[in-house]
Formats: sequence, C-alpha cells, structure tokens
Amino acid sequence: MDKDYTKLWLDYSKRKDMGNGALFKTISVFDFSNPEGFPVIQNALEELTKGAAGMLGVIPLVLSGDRSAESAGVQFPKGTLSIRRMEDLGPETYHVIEHEGKLHLHAGDENGVLYGAFEILRRIAMEQPLTGMDVTKTPDCPFRMLNHWDNLDGSIERGYSGKSFFFENDEILVNDRTEQYARLIASVGINAVVINNVNVKNAASLLITDTYFAKVAELSGVFSRYGIKLYLSLNFASPMEIGGLNTVDPLEPQVIFWWESKMAEIFAKIPNLGGFLVKADSEGRPGPFTYDRTQADGANMLADIVKKYGARIIWRAFVYNCQQDWRDTKTDRACAGYNSFKPVDGTFRDNVILQVKNGPMDFQIREGVSSLLGGMEKTNEMLEVQIAQEYTGQQIDLCYLMPMFREILDFKTYCGKEKDTVADIISGRCFGNKNTGIAAVTNTGNDRNWTGNDLAAANLYGFGRLACDLSLSPEQIAREWIALTYGNDPVVMETILKMLLESREIYESYTSPLGVGWMVTPSVHYGPFVDGYEYSRWGCYHRADHAGIGIDRTKEGSDYVSQYHEPNTSLYNDIRTCPEELLLFFHHVPYTYRLKSGKTLIQHIYDSHFEGYERALGLQESWKSLKDRLPLEVYHRVEERLIRQVANAREWRDQVNTYFYRKSGIPDEKGREIY
Amino acid sequence: MDKDYTKLWLDYSKRKDMGNGALFKTISVFDFSNPEGFPVIQNALEELTKGAAGMLGVIPLVLSGDRSAESAGVQFPKGTLSIRRMEDLGPETYHVIEHEGKLHLHAGDENGVLYGAFEILRRIAMEQPLTGMDVTKTPDCPFRMLNHWDNLDGSIERGYSGKSFFFENDEILVNDRTEQYARLIASVGINAVVINNVNVKNAASLLITDTYFAKVAELSGVFSRYGIKLYLSLNFASPMEIGGLNTVDPLEPQVIFWWESKMAEIFAKIPNLGGFLVKADSEGRPGPFTYDRTQADGANMLADIVKKYGARIIWRAFVYNCQQDWRDTKTDRACAGYNSFKPVDGTFRDNVILQVKNGPMDFQIREGVSSLLGGMEKTNEMLEVQIAQEYTGQQIDLCYLMPMFREILDFKTYCGKEKDTVADIISGRCFGNKNTGIAAVTNTGNDRNWTGNDLAAANLYGFGRLACDLSLSPEQIAREWIALTYGNDPVVMETILKMLLESREIYESYTSPLGVGWMVTPSVHYGPFVDGYEYSRWGCYHRADHAGIGIDRTKEGSDYVSQYHEPNTSLYNDIRTCPEELLLFFHHVPYTYRLKSGKTLIQHIYDSHFEGYERALGLQESWKSLKDRLPLEVYHRVEERLIRQVANAREWRDQVNTYFYRKSGIPDEKGREIY
Repeated sequence: MDKDYTKLWLDYSKRKDMGNGALFKTISVFDFSNPEGFPVIQNALEELTKGAAGMLGVIPLVLSGDRSAESAGVQFPKGTLSIRRMEDLGPETYHVIEHEGKLHLHAGDENGVLYGAFEILRRIAMEQPLTGMDVTKTPDCPFRMLNHWDNLDGSIERGYSGKSFFFENDEILVNDRTEQYARLIASVGINAVVINNVNVKNAASLLITDTYFAKVAELSGVFSRYGIKLYLSLNFASPMEIGGLNTVDPLEPQVIFWWESKMAEIFAKIPNLGGFLVKADSEGRPGPFTYDRTQADGANMLADIVKKYGARIIWRAFVYNCQQDWRDTKTDRACAGYNSFKPVDGTFRDNVILQVKNGPMDFQIREGVSSLLGGMEKTNEMLEVQIAQEYTGQQIDLCYLMPMFREILDFKTYCGKEKDTVADIISGRCFGNKNTGIAAVTNTGNDRNWTGNDLAAANLYGFGRLACDLSLSPEQIAREWIALTYGNDPVVMETILKMLLESREIYESYTSPLGVGWMVTPSVHYGPFVDGYEYSRWGCYHRADHAGIGIDRTKEGSDYVSQYHEPNTSLYNDIRTCPEELLLFFHHVPYTYRLKSGKTLIQHIYDSHFEGYERALGLQESWKSLKDRLPLEVYHRVEERLIRQVANAREWRDQVNTYFYRKSGIPDEKGREIY
Repeated sequence: MDKDYTKLWLDYSKRKDMGNGALFKTISVFDFSNPEGFPVIQNALEELTKGAAGMLGVIPLVLSGDRSAESAGVQFPKGTLSIRRMEDLGPETYHVIEHEGKLHLHAGDENGVLYGAFEILRRIAMEQPLTGMDVTKTPDCPFRMLNHWDNLDGSIERGYSGKSFFFENDEILVNDRTEQYARLIASVGINAVVINNVNVKNAASLLITDTYFAKVAELSGVFSRYGIKLYLSLNFASPMEIGGLNTVDPLEPQVIFWWESKMAEIFAKIPNLGGFLVKADSEGRPGPFTYDRTQADGANMLADIVKKYGARIIWRAFVYNCQQDWRDTKTDRACAGYNSFKPVDGTFRDNVILQVKNGPMDFQIREGVSSLLGGMEKTNEMLEVQIAQEYTGQQIDLCYLMPMFREILDFKTYCGKEKDTVADIISGRCFGNKNTGIAAVTNTGNDRNWTGNDLAAANLYGFGRLACDLSLSPEQIAREWIALTYGNDPVVMETILKMLLESREIYESYTSPLGVGWMVTPSVHYGPFVDGYEYSRWGCYHRADHAGIGIDRTKEGSDYVSQYHEPNTSLYNDIRTCPEELLLFFHHVPYTYRLKSGKTLIQHIYDSHFEGYERALGLQESWKSLKDRLPLEVYHRVEERLIRQVANAREWRDQVNTYFYRKSGIPDEKGREIY
C-alpha cells in the first residue's frame, strides 16, 4: 500500500479472466468525444483502464471520436468496449450489452457512463463472464446522499473511524485522499455529499463566507468530476450569527433579503453546489418555531431563494422536545415528528426534500418505521439512515445494517393501494415525485481502513448499492462487497457472509430487547446502562418496573399507533398481532407474558442475552478460521475489534440480565449466573 | 463594595459599642517592637485598627517599643490594648485578659498575636463586652489546612464558585484578592494552604521548576505574612515527567538523587514552603505500588529528603481499586485504605502525615467513619474533609457541614482507654504526636461572594474555627458566622441559624437513604441517578434488587466491620445495634424490615424523600422572610440557589421514590404520587 489508507473494494487485484480480458482490447468513446471536456467520462475511462490492467492484465487502447467518425464507417473489431450517449436513456442511466464479442456501454449522461463502467468492473471482480451481459439500469433513488457529521476542527460527531478527512484545525483539506474518497463513493452510485455536521457551530458557520469559499469550491470540483454534488449543512441562524441581524424569522423581509444576497454570493463562488441540509428546531438548534412559524415557512423561504440556482433544501424532520419531563408519560417523543410536519403536508415547495429518519426515535437497533414515511403524502421525502454505528456498536461490534435497511424499505405503509412501501416512496414510484431519495449518516474517517472496523466498509458499500437498486438483498450486496474486497475464495466468502448476515441479529439479541431501545450509556451511546436515559430529558424511556416493561404507544397509551395507516394501526395496537420484535416498542408488557415461542418475556430476555454473548463468541471463532486467508493487517484489526465486541456483549448480557432479575425477582429457568 | 468580591465575615461594619470602644484608645506593642520586622504582627495591628474603626468608630493610637521601654516605667492609661510576647505560652497560643480597663493580649509567637486579635474582633462583632474577658487558647490541631483543587488553566476540580483565584491560563495570580484571601483564612486560624490540585497534571508539573518559582515564592510571601505556610501538591512521577528518568521507583538511587537535587532547588527558591501533598497510587495517579513498594517506601523517601528543610510530606490514604468489576461482590472499596496502610503502620517517618478522608468511601452525605482513624496507631494522621460540596449539593443546595464534622470528631474509635475520639487523634492528644491536624478540600473560587452560595461561606468559616477549637458546637459556630457576616439582628440570626442547622439533615433526607450513598449522576455528582454507579468500575454500589438494598459489610459480607476496634465491630455487625442512619452502609436490608420508628424500610425511603422536599420548600420560605433584612444582592443570590435546590429536591424525591417503587412494587402507605 503506497498511501496511508486502503483502497477498500477498489483494489483491482488479479482476478480469473473468465473470457473478460478479450473484451478490453480497445475502448472507443463516441458523443463524449473529447474526454478532457467531460471529466466524469475521463474518470470512467481511467477506472476501466486501471481495472482491466489490475484484474485482467490487459491494457486497452482508448480511442475517441464524434458520431460522424462512426457514420464515416469506422469499424471496431471484436474486443472493443464501445461507449456512446443514447438520448432515450434518461439521466444516470446505462445499458450494457455484450454482442458478438463486443461490449456496448450506452448511457443517458456522464453519470450513466461512470455507473456502467463500475457495473462492468464489479462483474470482472466477481469473476462473472461479461459474455451474454445485457443490463439496463437507472438508479432507483434520484438522490443518493452521504451526510458527514464532520466538524471543522477535525472531530466527527458520532465518528468511529478517526478524524475528518475534510477538515483539520478549521481548515479544509483537498488532497489525494479526497479524490480517492470521491472515487470510492461514486463507484457505488452516490451522487450527493454533505461535508459538514448538521449541528453547524463555530467555524462551520463561516463555510458560507469568503473565509472558505475558495476551498469549498475546490472540494466541489473534485466531487463533480465523479458526478457528485456537494451540499452544505446550513445554520438557520446565520442571519444573526454571521449577518448581524437580530432575528432569523423566515417571514421577516430583512431576513429574506439577507439570504437572497448571501445565496447569490454562495452560488457565484461555489460551482456545482447542490443545496443545503438544515437541522432546525432540533436539539437546541434554532428554527422557525422560535418565531411561531411552521417548518414549511422556514424551508420554503430558503427554497424559493435557491430555486433559481437549481438547488434543493434538505430539511430534517428530527424535531422533538428534548426537554421532556420523565414523569410525563403522556408525551411521547415518537409522536413528535408527525405532529410537527403532518399539518403542513402539501405546503412545501417542490425543491424542498424532507429528510426523515427511518424510525421515530433515533437510529436504534430496532424501531418501528417512522409514521412520516407514508404519512406525508404531498411532500418530497428522503429516508435518513445511519451507517455510522452510533447505537449499533460503533464499528467495534460487527453490525451489517443491510438486513435492517431491507426491512425498512419493504415496509408497507398502506399510503396507497399499491407501490406503497418505503422503497416506493423514496424512489418516487409511489407519488410520482422526482425530488426523493435516501441519505446515510456516514461511517468514514481518516483511519487507514476508512471505517474503523474493516467489515464496517460493507455498510458504506451496501448503502450506495441499495440506494441505486432498492431491490437488492443483503446477501447479494454482501457477496459483492466480499468478492470486491477480499476476492473470490469460497471459504472467505461463505465465512464473512455468514458473519455479516447474522451480525445485526446478534447485536440486537445482547443489547436492548424487543424494540425497547435506549439502554445505552448516555452521551457516548456505547455499552449498556439500562436506566441511563430513564430519568432524563431526552424522551426515551423503557418504563420498566417490578412487573413489566415497554412503552404503551397503543390507543390506550400515547396513541402513536394511530399515526400509521390501517391496517398497521390495528396490527400494532393489538398485542396479539404486533410483531414480536417490536413488542416493547408498542406495548408495556408483564414479564410473565408468554411470547409465541411459549417463553415468558423475562425468560426471553435472559435467553436472548445469554445466546447473544455466545453468538458473539461465535463471530470471533469464525474470524479465527480466516487467519491464513486474509491480509494479516486486516485480520488483526478485525480480531482486535471482535475481542472488544465480546467484552461488550458480556457487559450487556450481565447488566441487562442483572437489572431485570433484580427488578422482577424472577429467576432464570436455566439457573445461569446472574449477579 | 469597591472590589469585585465581598469581604465575607470581615466587613467590620458598625456594631453596638458595649463599652468596647473605650478599650481601643491606644494599642501598645512590646517585644515585637519593630512591626515592620514582624509582618504578622503588622497585619494583626492593621486588623485591630480597621476593626475598631469600622465596628466601634474608634481610631487607636499605636505605640511600639521594646521591653526596656516598659521597664523604664512608661505607664499606659486605661483604654490601652497591650500586646506582648510571653515565652511560657506555646506556639500559636494567646491569652487575652481585661484587667482594670486595660486589655492584654499575650502570645507565644506572632501567630498567637494574630489569632488573639481576631478573637477580640470576633467578640466586638458579636456585640459581646470585652470587659471581664479572660481567654487562653492554643489551636487544637497543629496543622489546619485548606486543600485547593485548582488547576493551572484556572479551572477547579470540584469547584462550584467560579474559577481559580490562584491560576489563570497557566499563570499564577498574585494580587489584592490573594491578600484578602490570606487575611480571611488567617482570621479563622488556617496555617497551611495547598494551592494546586492533588491530581498534578499538565502545567502543574512545572510548579517545581524555574517556570514558576518566582511567582510561587511571591505567593508564599503573601501567605507567610498571615502566618500561613504554602504547600504544593506533588506529582510522584516528576522524575519521569520533568526529570527524564525512566522510573520513579522510590528505592532507586537515581530517583532519590533526582529528588534530592530538586528539593534543594525548590527550598532555595521558595521560602516558607511547608512541604508537599501527594496523591499516589490513586485513581490513575502513579505511585510506589507500581514498583511493588509500600506506601511508606514512597512517603519516607520524600520525607527523608525534605526533613532538613523542616518540611512535611502529607500522604493521601485515598488508595483503592478504581477498576473494579461490579459483578465482584467480595471486593469492597471501603476496605481498601486500611488494607493498604495498616500493614505499614509504624514505618512512616515522623514528618510524614497520612491524610485520611473522613469516611472510607468518598465524602458522601453519610458514611461510617474511616477505619484508618484509630486504626493507624503509630502514624501521624490528618483528617481530610471536604467543604467543596461535591456530593453534598455543590453550593447550590444548602448544606452546613459542621453537624457532620461534629459527629466525625466525636466518634469514639476505641483505639485506647480514653482520648480515643477522632478529635483526640487529630489533635495529638490520643497518641501524643505533634504532626497531626485537619484539612478541608476547600469551597472557594473567584465568584464575587467567594463560595457560590453565600451561605456556604459558613462552611469555610466553620472549618477553620473547628480546626482551632475541636470542641465548638455547630450552633456556636453558626452564630458567630451569622453575627460577623450579617450583624446581630435577632430575626436574621435565628432564621439563618435554623436553616443552617437543619440543612444537612434535609439534604440527606431527599438524597440517598441511610448511608447507602452514590445515587448521584456519575462524573458530575449533582442530582440523582440511582443506578448511576451501580454497574461501574468505581466500586460504589447500592446492590438494590426487588427485595432489598444495602451493602453487606458485616462479617458475613465484606467484613469491613472488623477493621474497627471493639465494640464498634460488634455494634455495626449486628443489624439490631447498628445506628440506623448507617443501616444500609453496613447491611443489605429487605424493604419490609421494620425500623425502630415502626416504619418499614421502604416506607422510610418514601417518607424521608417526601419530607425532604417539603423541608427544602421550608428553607425557601424561611429565606423569603429575610428579604428586607439583608442586602438585596445577598438575598437574590441565595434565593436563586434555593429555587434550584427545590427543583433538585423534587428530582431526587421523584427519581428515588419511583426507582424503589418500580423495583419493590410496594406502594406508598399514604398513596402519594410516585411515577
């Protein structure tokens, strides 16, 4: 490795040929005739050349010309990859077909070419023959975004992979690693990146001033050459903090005027800027509620101004009361988002996109799907997930998140007769809108391996792939990632595949039971602390007493269930039909309640925690079996993480079991050690 | 107020004369004939002059001379205060007597004069006639020390009164406030001050280098003019951290040599330095245990070196395992200090003083008295208490600590047939040693009123007074402090007196019950968090389950009880004879256990918490009645604190009651609201 970071899934090491090498004698490019003028095409060509050389040992001859050249009768021999624009293919779309020994990559635009190139390279890496290939693909989500919670001082909020590679000591970094990062995420179809933390404070407020314009523009240039638009998180209070006004009321003319001037300046200075992400009225951040305005008033004001620049306002729906009194059992944080936004559904501008977390709480290992998904029927929505493993093991514990995302995407909201799943909503299939998509709070940092835990890179890879193709299965994605990263050794493939696929279930089983969530160490969010949030102001409680546990969100309780469409409301409302993995998310349940397995709830808690620990040990065993099959550096890094995961699982097991044993007084049927 | 801080109990405002003014026509000083050469005397004279002027409206004529002047037959008229050295009075001792209209202040040394002067001024402030006065006093504790946990960056560990007035941005401050501080603490008899935090880190390691020598010497000068010796907290790892050695093994010749050179340098550069306070092998600090040496090996090495400078090593006994596994119910942090030090009793040098916290845990609102007090029979001991209200309300909640200190001092250790109380041990009466005393982690900062809560100044005042006179009652001290600070309005006196005297009981009643301790928010140590430390590494657990609560420290449990002398061991060991306020400190007790009051334990928890909150409200009411009788500034500052105390008491009441109700399932007999 010549640089101090790895190449992740793009290392292009030697693969079996499978007849593929013969297709890379020549690459001909038409319509995009002058690659220098089409930087994305140029990068696609470089990628194909590098990939063919590394994986197949072939160095193709690259020829370019305009359409007339071909009509003039130039004939390319077998073994040519021919790249052409096809007007009838839409944006970001490609069609790759092999025909009589020639490979054709047709695309609607530059991004289509890039994504088609990466599709071809993926197949080569997986040692699949390109012969017979015939694939047409448009990314399912129009917006496929990564949200960095990077601060300008170089720290990353909820970052578990080192420091920021965008910022250091209040300066912006643009270097070789930036380029490699853009390449990596483009290879999985990401087309939007927010570079700074949604909590915009300190120096970050100056990103939209002369202090940083030049460097942000430079960064934007790097991304744009990979078909990616740069976005900035915006401080809604900017007119006060950097503008010197004494209000940020979105309906106040001086505020609007200030933003109009500021936006003119920003878009003049930062080419290719996609728009802004705004966290308003959330966890202490300022917002329109301060001035008795709606969330729509705030978002629309900005949206109207940036419309002429073709930009979007991504508005976060994470609005709730973070000063709750724990004694107040009527108020339910789960209800807050819907209560704030449902009344203004239909009033948002078309270039506003509401960014909605997958669950109504906050990225727990298990939650119900947010009622805003399907609830907002006349508003553009972008699903927000978190691959930074804040509550899911912090890239110490293994937690492959695609199974969770798969469940969320497949969730039927019943917002319509058909095309009513979350996947349908965020792809635009459901309501026919174009400004929809998916965003992930990302998991990268300047660690040598990018994601702290090497295996956590599967979440970065998987997120992008899933955003492009919402129908992919967790297994399919995992197989791709393993093959691309570690090659096609079947032992490596099957071992890591099994580890990844069971990892979420394992993490869930030794942490908080049946959807109850929040039994984590406050602030840090790693490790157990059963009562950690129980008497806090954050609105996240488990309500355990000597008799039972869980949050009553039924019609008798907070009535969160009624925010869903039927039949979901009834399904969740009734303890007999509520999916058991969400039992404690929706119901307060006695420890003696019998689950469908015949076990009591308390026994389920004991069993799952004992089993979860054992299965964590199992992960460790599996990994050991790969010692001679993986680069030693990778082996040791992951081994070290698994040791910590096992210790964490033990701590969770013992604290949770002890807590519930002490509280309920009901002994474990199997007489295992509880403290 | 001309400066940005108050004068506390030394404001010398107008008092009723009571015939006292007539005694201050002249002040004559003999033996200490040239006050300029006796700076402590000079300060005493200034104080008497200022006090007479302010409180009595009299400006005395000050005359000084040597003994020969008097023997030459100079006659002073009635109304003279005559100050003389008396060889037969010991160090720090004074005799004040009024005789035929003349006041005589005889003293063994300069400090005796200063303390005698403050005694006279105290009586004037309390509007007591000096006529008929005849008092001889030697301070009971040879060492009366304040420990500042101030860091060089200006922060104060466990400080609740603003920033440090010694340090700011790694620089030492010596200014008017330093002088005023020295004067304040000298007025209550303090003769030793440690200026820096026992956790010696960062810049503080350089206090014993050229970087800071000049300023430390200047500071030492200010204190010495008030009869106070300056001490420094020492980093045991200095030979490595600043000396470049690769060991700090106390028996290693190069380490000893390094310290010898260093001490020669220090004592040459800092006159009047009293010695060093050392926190070793404690909460991550380095120490002799690292090298398999005893605590005595570490302390004696330093003591031998500093002996020639007449200095002392104050060695902290706060040694325990702060990496405990909560599952381990055999290990008991309470036992740790005794286990580390008892085996080396009798091996410490005479200029080593072991500084022992009052309880075996850490400054909780209620603990058993440390078994090291009375346990160490051949070692100099200094009792360490904490007037910084870390666990006792953080100078937000009112908590007058003299009642607690009174109990501790009166505790019979049974280490001998008589003179066996803690007061006897730390005064030297018990074992006949001279290097004994009492230290308080202090509660001051650069807040305008010095102690955050104005009423918390009673703890600073009281600590000093108690250190001088171990027989004083909490009421007596409170009366003095109120009269000196707010004058002699009987309504003010009786109201504040009642508030102070009941405040500790109130704080105890709404916080952790019956000596169990530790139900605080981790790290911060303010506000409730019943399980906050229950699964931590800090060794402080309450072991509550559905059936009962408390730590079994009997012979059946950790056997901490056996570290006491009989009959204390038996008394604590038997639940029937164990004092109930310590019930849960020594026993694990079922909730249904009947206390002597006839109440069950659980009902006691409910009742005391409901009552505690009501009584906190009562404090607020009492204070309101003083609105027109106190300076408005004082009134409002304390009022604001009481509002926060009431909110805190409510939070404690509800969290503790809810916690135990949820755990036990036993309802409150009175049906009050529990959540």
